[in-house]
Amino acid sequence: MATKWVYFFGNGKTEGQVGNKVLVGGKGANLAEMVDMGIPVPAGFTITTEACTEYYRNDKNWADGLEEQVRKNVKKIEEAMGKAFGDSENPLLLSVRSGARVSMPGMMDTVLNLGLNDTTVEGLIKKSGEERFGWDSYRRFIQMYGDVVMGVEHAKFEKALDEVKEAKGVELDTELDAADLKELVAKYKAVVQEDAGKLFPEDPMEQLQGAVNAVFESWDTPRAVRYRKMNDIPGDWGTAVNVQAMVFGNMGQTSGTGVAFTRDPSTGENVFYGEYLMNAQGEDVVAGIRTPKPIKALEDDNAEVYKQLVEIYQHLESHYKDMQDLEFTIEDGTLYMLQTRNGKRTAAAAVRMAVDMVEEGLIDKKTAVNRVEPAQLDQLLHPMIDPNTEYEAIAKGLPASPGAAVGQIVFDAEVAEEWVNNGKKVVLVRNETSPEDIGGMDVAEGVLTARGGMTSHAAVVARGMGKCCVAGCGDAKINEAAKTLTMNGTTLKEGDWLTLNGTTGDVVVGKVDLIEPQLTGNFGTLMEWADEFRQLGIRTNADTPHDSATAREFGAEGIGLCRTEHMFFEGDRIKAVRQMILASNQEGREKALAKLLPYQKGDFLGIFKAMKDLPVTIRLLDPPLHEFLPHEDDDIKELADDMGVSFDELKATVESLSEMNPMLGHRGCRLGVTFPEIYAMQARAIFEAAAELTIDGDTVIPEVMIPLVGTPKELQLMKDVCDNEAKAVMDEKGVNFDYRVGTMIEIPRACLLADQIAEDAEFFSFGTNDLTQMTFGYSRDDAGRFLPSYTELGILEKDPFQSLDQAGVGQLVEMGVERGRAVRSDLKIGICGEHGGDPDSIDFCHRAGLDYVSCSPFRVPIARLAAAQAAIRNGQ
Amino acid sequence: MATKWVYFFGNGKTEGQVGNKVLVGGKGANLAEMVDMGIPVPAGFTITTEACTEYYRNDKNWADGLEEQVRKNVKKIEEAMGKAFGDSENPLLLSVRSGARVSMPGMMDTVLNLGLNDTTVEGLIKKSGEERFGWDSYRRFIQMYGDVVMGVEHAKFEKALDEVKEAKGVELDTELDAADLKELVAKYKAVVQEDAGKLFPEDPMEQLQGAVNAVFESWDTPRAVRYRKMNDIPGDWGTAVNVQAMVFGNMGQTSGTGVAFTRDPSTGENVFYGEYLMNAQGEDVVAGIRTPKPIKALEDDNAEVYKQLVEIYQHLESHYKDMQDLEFTIEDGTLYMLQTRNGKRTAAAAVRMAVDMVEEGLIDKKTAVNRVEPAQLDQLLHPMIDPNTEYEAIAKGLPASPGAAVGQIVFDAEVAEEWVNNGKKVVLVRNETSPEDIGGMDVAEGVLTARGGMTSHAAVVARGMGKCCVAGCGDAKINEAAKTLTMNGTTLKEGDWLTLNGTTGDVVVGKVDLIEPQLTGNFGTLMEWADEFRQLGIRTNADTPHDSATAREFGAEGIGLCRTEHMFFEGDRIKAVRQMILASNQEGREKALAKLLPYQKGDFLGIFKAMKDLPVTIRLLDPPLHEFLPHEDDDIKELADDMGVSFDELKATVESLSEMNPMLGHRGCRLGVTFPEIYAMQARAIFEAAAELTIDGDTVIPEVMIPLVGTPKELQLMKDVCDNEAKAVMDEKGVNFDYRVGTMIEIPRACLLADQIAEDAEFFSFGTNDLTQMTFGYSRDDAGRFLPSYTELGILEKDPFQSLDQAGVGQLVEMGVERGRAVRSDLKIGICGEHGGDPDSIDFCHRAGLDYVSCSPFRVPIARLAAAQAAIRNGQ
Repeated sequence: MATKWVYFFGNGKTEGQVGNKVLVGGKGANLAEMVDMGIPVPAGFTITTEACTEYYRNDKNWADGLEEQVRKNVKKIEEAMGKAFGDSENPLLLSVRSGARVSMPGMMDTVLNLGLNDTTVEGLIKKSGEERFGWDSYRRFIQMYGDVVMGVEHAKFEKALDEVKEAKGVELDTELDAADLKELVAKYKAVVQEDAGKLFPEDPMEQLQGAVNAVFESWDTPRAVRYRKMNDIPGDWGTAVNVQAMVFGNMGQTSGTGVAFTRDPSTGENVFYGEYLMNAQGEDVVAGIRTPKPIKALEDDNAEVYKQLVEIYQHLESHYKDMQDLEFTIEDGTLYMLQTRNGKRTAAAAVRMAVDMVEEGLIDKKTAVNRVEPAQLDQLLHPMIDPNTEYEAIAKGLPASPGAAVGQIVFDAEVAEEWVNNGKKVVLVRNETSPEDIGGMDVAEGVLTARGGMTSHAAVVARGMGKCCVAGCGDAKINEAAKTLTMNGTTLKEGDWLTLNGTTGDVVVGKVDLIEPQLTGNFGTLMEWADEFRQLGIRTNADTPHDSATAREFGAEGIGLCRTEHMFFEGDRIKAVRQMILASNQEGREKALAKLLPYQKGDFLGIFKAMKDLPVTIRLLDPPLHEFLPHEDDDIKELADDMGVSFDELKATVESLSEMNPMLGHRGCRLGVTFPEIYAMQARAIFEAAAELTIDGDTVIPEVMIPLVGTPKELQLMKDVCDNEAKAVMDEKGVNFDYRVGTMIEIPRACLLADQIAEDAEFFSFGTNDLTQMTFGYSRDDAGRFLPSYTELGILEKDPFQSLDQAGVGQLVEMGVERGRAVRSDLKIGICGEHGGDPDSIDFCHRAGLDYVSCSPFRVPIARLAAAQAAIRNGQ
Repeated sequence: MATKWVYFFGNGKTEGQVGNKVLVGGKGANLAEMVDMGIPVPAGFTITTEACTEYYRNDKNWADGLEEQVRKNVKKIEEAMGKAFGDSENPLLLSVRSGARVSMPGMMDTVLNLGLNDTTVEGLIKKSGEERFGWDSYRRFIQMYGDVVMGVEHAKFEKALDEVKEAKGVELDTELDAADLKELVAKYKAVVQEDAGKLFPEDPMEQLQGAVNAVFESWDTPRAVRYRKMNDIPGDWGTAVNVQAMVFGNMGQTSGTGVAFTRDPSTGENVFYGEYLMNAQGEDVVAGIRTPKPIKALEDDNAEVYKQLVEIYQHLESHYKDMQDLEFTIEDGTLYMLQTRNGKRTAAAAVRMAVDMVEEGLIDKKTAVNRVEPAQLDQLLHPMIDPNTEYEAIAKGLPASPGAAVGQIVFDAEVAEEWVNNGKKVVLVRNETSPEDIGGMDVAEGVLTARGGMTSHAAVVARGMGKCCVAGCGDAKINEAAKTLTMNGTTLKEGDWLTLNGTTGDVVVGKVDLIEPQLTGNFGTLMEWADEFRQLGIRTNADTPHDSATAREFGAEGIGLCRTEHMFFEGDRIKAVRQMILASNQEGREKALAKLLPYQKGDFLGIFKAMKDLPVTIRLLDPPLHEFLPHEDDDIKELADDMGVSFDELKATVESLSEMNPMLGHRGCRLGVTFPEIYAMQARAIFEAAAELTIDGDTVIPEVMIPLVGTPKELQLMKDVCDNEAKAVMDEKGVNFDYRVGTMIEIPRACLLADQIAEDAEFFSFGTNDLTQMTFGYSRDDAGRFLPSYTELGILEKDPFQSLDQAGVGQLVEMGVERGRAVRSDLKIGICGEHGGDPDSIDFCHRAGLDYVSCSPFRVPIARLAAAQAAIRNGQ
């Protein structure tokens, strides 16, 4: 039997190709599926992917029998549509589209209106009654065909068009009438002849053959080859070709076209939603020149068709079990569905539909959990710009922390606090932020910085606070001294109103309306279902009782990372911290540390209470000491006066502490090793707090985390310091409590030596921010200068600070897990840092066998959902 | 049969213990070995290590039979020595020493002069005729025994001594006479009684038992336990105890003592070398109070003994097949050998002896190659301070680059160049150096810096130049503006003379005499032998024709790392470099680069010629661009004027290019990716030079190395840039030449993805400096603040920037080798950077299967020798 190269669909008939994407490609299978369901679809046929590979195998010649099968199937379309290919009265026009197994958007070619020639254009004009439409379609077809099939340079058509417009003395294409367009057709044909060296084919079958070849060959363009390479698509798959009858919604008042959703894509409400226009083409609905009517009005225009459409949409939704985005055309009173696909939706709609559909029995919980993009949830957790409001952005920065903010500009963190105390709302505008700005960031509505990337100080802290932040806005020229913000020519002063959209990075002058987040019942329901599936624990990164409480409300099951350095900045503490740094000996340091102890204890009391019964992982001091000292001469002078030392002495200390590469400097446990009294104070504060709450009858689970460990001995020494303090506090207070000492795994060497480190570590927490910095050799603070080019050039698929680099950093994480557990099989392993809230990274963590992920409070729901999806995806 | 716990040696007899270090420890076996050879050794016996472990097993009691065996063997000593233990006329005194299987220097205890009491002291006085000596020996014995055996606090003896001196009104111990010392003996006994709560034992056997126990127990002191742990010595080995007759060289004019070497330890000349004193103790020879006589003079003092000594030294050397360091004592005309061991020697002596001994047929070439410490060779390659000169160091820094330098102080690199042009010799003194100082460093005799570690800019560049450098001299307070150098209270000015000892780190005020290196024929011979054994290739790191030629003379087989950034600083080039950096677009950059092209080509022409027929690996630009710009306002102003831009504009550019962590910033191939025109210019310069020399008939082998690759795609893109230039140059010049494009492997991720990277890389070169920085998360520039504590606390065994961290970084190197070769089995792999010249690291490279190591020119001979030893050690 001869090979079957062509599969017909239409008129309720298909040839067994439904579900066989390998053979007929995705689009071919879907069109056939609709036909099989009895949905009216313009008839057509699919040329198989095998025909494509055969074409290549055969030196770019059609397979034996393909031409005959194509001719037969064109006949079938003619019969189904009641039109004839090449006919002068009622011509059948065809679209020719590629359709590979997987979607390769924009990669391959399409030809529309195929079949038009000097004869059939007359038929099109007669049927539509629109002479201009006929000639316009014809000239567009010649241009498209000339470009795609015959390789004619696009610019040459443009030149011919310009000549006609010039001769006519008009500016716009729309000002050309039918006669002009007819003239243009002649000119276009001349262009083709001149450029391609042959005549434009008038024979529709010849046109068809050319278009099919062009689609076959678009599979092998350099662009497509590169795309396949990037997406691991084998070159020998080939593409199918879909040849389908064109239908027209602009054949008079009995024709029309529209788009519709089976539910409201904004709210998720279960109502038929959409719009249409009679006597119009699809692009008219979208273009906004005519105002489309709401879909319900179609009942008045054509009750029969409306009824049919309702039945179809209900059928499609129950078939695909998801909200569908439909395109339809009515040609001369006959309804055709052109496309159905899962519809895009807002986060709120996604959640509502998922929950509704479970309640309707349409889908199960697992499907519902998979239905919502975790990242989308972010929209639901912050105030946001009212989606119905239009605004004009004056500049764009990085969308560093989502949500929106409206406030008066201030350039100084202290001023921010003052103004907010006076009842104002402010937006903090800085070249970049530093730990000293935290107070101001905390009270501001949002933060705008001119420098720094998605993981700059401002971005990380803002995300931690769930506060809107637009970072690295290169167009913002900030003069902090003069208190001016200049963006693209507009200069704003302190007190001027500014709106930030942290979800998009837009910066807007003035006030834009915001809407508050509503965590509806559906949201809670979906989260509960997610918790049923996920295996990963979800903790949060929180440094304050307030953040801890927020995170707990969002479902956090403990703290995975409580940074202690922020605590060192608040109020008077910084003074004691500086005394400690400037002390010349251990005694002096211990004296200053003694002043800090009660503060730290107070911090931990608050956090432990907020996280009662849940584990709290506290990282001991991490940043280099110079971060706690001022660097500008004026500030040094002020501090020197304040501390009663000379300016020169203080300046010398500041300079002697400065580092070439602070990221790789004297920080983390290296501080603990050289100044064990610092870690001893912190450990004591933790354990005294734990002891006091234990005495009060609370259950606290402190986990002391040693940062930046790269050698087993560092951990051993620091663990001794902690254990000694724990023992001392237990003895003093006469109480026992559980605690663990573990380590951040954030240095490549720690992953390599994880077995030795696990001998002393009671838990691991991967600090993938630093691990990424060191594994790549990228400084987060500086990588902004080349990372954008890197993702643009495809050197990196994603910013590795946003989504964990599974190919490289991931290997080290897996190594750390495997080697750590080889020594201590019950080793508890988590991840903290930015990646803990990224869905792809969470999927990796699930596969790597981690116990939990930890992320900022506002990402906890995202992490819960992503963890559930990871469990489902990887086969629970 | 009862267990044999004790083995006798002496009088030519032993009991089979020779070679059995497990049983009698190293010292016991060696003493017995000498006796077996017929060498006269004071008789003694060894209590076995088994007796020690039995002692612990037995709750610190002697094993059954031990006491009896000890008594019997004391008798044997008495017989052998013709003295009696406890005798009042001719008393036998004993030494009691530990002796484990492996040497644990200073870890365990020793007791000397055991057997002295109120009776035997009189005998000692009679025999020696020295009353003062007798009482002094006695009081010293009480103190040592009290301390080691009875646990009496050392300070209490000191107090008693002070009291006697005070009463007598003297300051020095030597001012006390016999009567004073006798009084002191009584006081010491009282101290013992009071502190230990019991009488000092008068019974010699009781003394012996106590001393043996003390040695047994010194095996388990915390200090010894820690030492064992650090050195992986099992705790159950135990220590042996050596009990040996004391002999005295101060028993009158027929007695004497001396030290000798079987060859001259300074020159290696095959002559008997040493000195002695009659009627003296060993310490008198060393202490320098009396001037010892040269060993030859002994022939006059006692021809018989001299003849015997000559026979013995020849016998010992031919037995041990190495130069021996001997100690001997003549007691009353009888010669005793106290010790023989391989003698320490200068590098020159080591080389000469190794070569001589092969020629004498004493050892084979393999042994000769193993006989010289590679690191020692360094002494031979630089001018050094005359070892016969004494000097007083005013300060000490890090011995950053060996050799010595004498010159006048200058504080500025430009001044250095001026002064040297005027015929002066200078030492460049800087707080720290930067690339702008290279010209000054090049002309200076040596460099002193106040800041920076062993791998600071100054240190690395100086080692590369083979120039003496003392770095990180914390005692040096440098005021570069005032042009003063203050060290420990002394202030020097510009023009004052200074001497640096780069081998020790000493800084000396004024001029000290230097001697020039002499690469004798023996040196060349040894190097040839080394080359016969080694498997690793040895290349050099060199950036100039001069360095290339030097390295080639030292035996380099090519260049493993030619840095191109230094070339950017010379003369007028820096101007073009700065124009390139300040250009706002690609066109501007290309214009500036066009100016650099001829310079770079000239550089490569020179280097290729110097390395004719050998491979030259050239690293494309690596440092961040801001390194080429000035940072001080004054310098910025000058440059701005020079370049015709405003100060503000230039300052803004400098600031915008500054980085938080330049080490992890926009450098290496990240520059090449964002500004491909830079790498294109460099590649073109390389290939034009190669083409021109090829046309001239020379063979050049350029290897273009892309730095800082962390993703396969970076290499792919940069390789394309190079290949395009190569093709273009070949077409233009009409000539073909071979070249390779490969990559530095210096980022952890590159090791993890080495398989993918090897698909495009034609060679790998491990950049272990940066790889160490990133694997540990240490900045070389900043680690000085904690690394010293880290090695001190045992957190790290060695500075990982000096010796490759095999446990961590080594894993990544092995991974890189394995994965790279899995894809490309003939992948050529080398290492460049500081570790390439470190013997331990070279051993690792040999084991890891690398093809070559590359090091600075002056380390090439060291690397050749180390590579040979690695091959021998790991079984060729």
